Amino acid sequence: MELKIIGVIENGYESKEEAPRQGYYHDRKFILDIKSEFIDACSDFKEGDLIQLIYFADKSDRTVLRSKPPIMDRVMGVFSTRSPNRPNPLLIDIAKIERIDGNKILVTGLDALNGSPIVDIKGYSINLHNKLVQKYME
Amino acid sequence: MELKIIGVIENGYESKEEAPRQGYYHDRKFILDIKSEFIDACSDFKEGDLIQLIYFADKSDRTVLRSKPPIMDRVMGVFSTRSPNRPNPLLIDIAKIERIDGNKILVTGLDALNGSPIVDIKGYSINLHNKLVQKYME
Repeated sequence: MELKIIGVIENGYESKEEAPRQGYYHDRKFILDIKSEFIDACSDFKEGDLIQLIYFADKSDRTVLRSKPPIMDRVMGVFSTRSPNRPNPLLIDIAKIERIDGNKILVTGLDALNGSPIVDIKGYSINLHNKLVQKYME
Repeated sequence: MELKIIGVIENGYESKEEAPRQGYYHDRKFILDIKSEFIDACSDFKEGDLIQLIYFADKSDRTVLRSKPPIMDRVMGVFSTRSPNRPNPLLIDIAKIERIDGNKILVTGLDALNGSPIVDIKGYSINLHNKLVQKYME
């Protein structure tokens, strides 16, 4: 299964050491530079929208099956973690659209490395998600 | 960027028409049949865990850039929607682990079609997510 590159994340962090562990605590502005062939799929974006971004961590080690998360004191199976090192390094972040300038979409909320390929963007509804949370908190 | 198949979703719906729009309202049990080469990455799964599952909607139309969501009265750019028809048909669901039987993981909460290839599984924390929601609700 081959993924198409939808666009690229600009103004990202230069290294894993520089990146914060949770992007949504920070105000850094990232640019989603969308390829012209996919711009029609962005036609309903507007400022203030929350989106769920999937990008490919192309600098990750795809052979890792077990690793130690920063907040844990032991090695774990990577499918119980959110480590970028995993068989398919697809990373998911919720971001907020701050401004749209043609095919460049300015967002906050990421912790991505610079130049990471974007593979999907989905609309994100907090209300819908809260219903799900409510079910599992019962 | 090529994705590896981690496993396959069994006991899924046979068609889009049969599948509910939100899997988490339903109690249907799905089986994540994990390939033996990736079983070490599942070593910390336990019953009751919430996971974020990414699977590939291999029956989707990848040429679609604009479509009409079921709950809307107009056509929208697919990156503002959660339609399975999109350039990279990666679908994301939160699921709950009900039972683990070797490489077969029984879960609830999906709306997946039968035989869908699994491409990633991540641990999911409601508390972490609530912090994010809190930020955006401010």
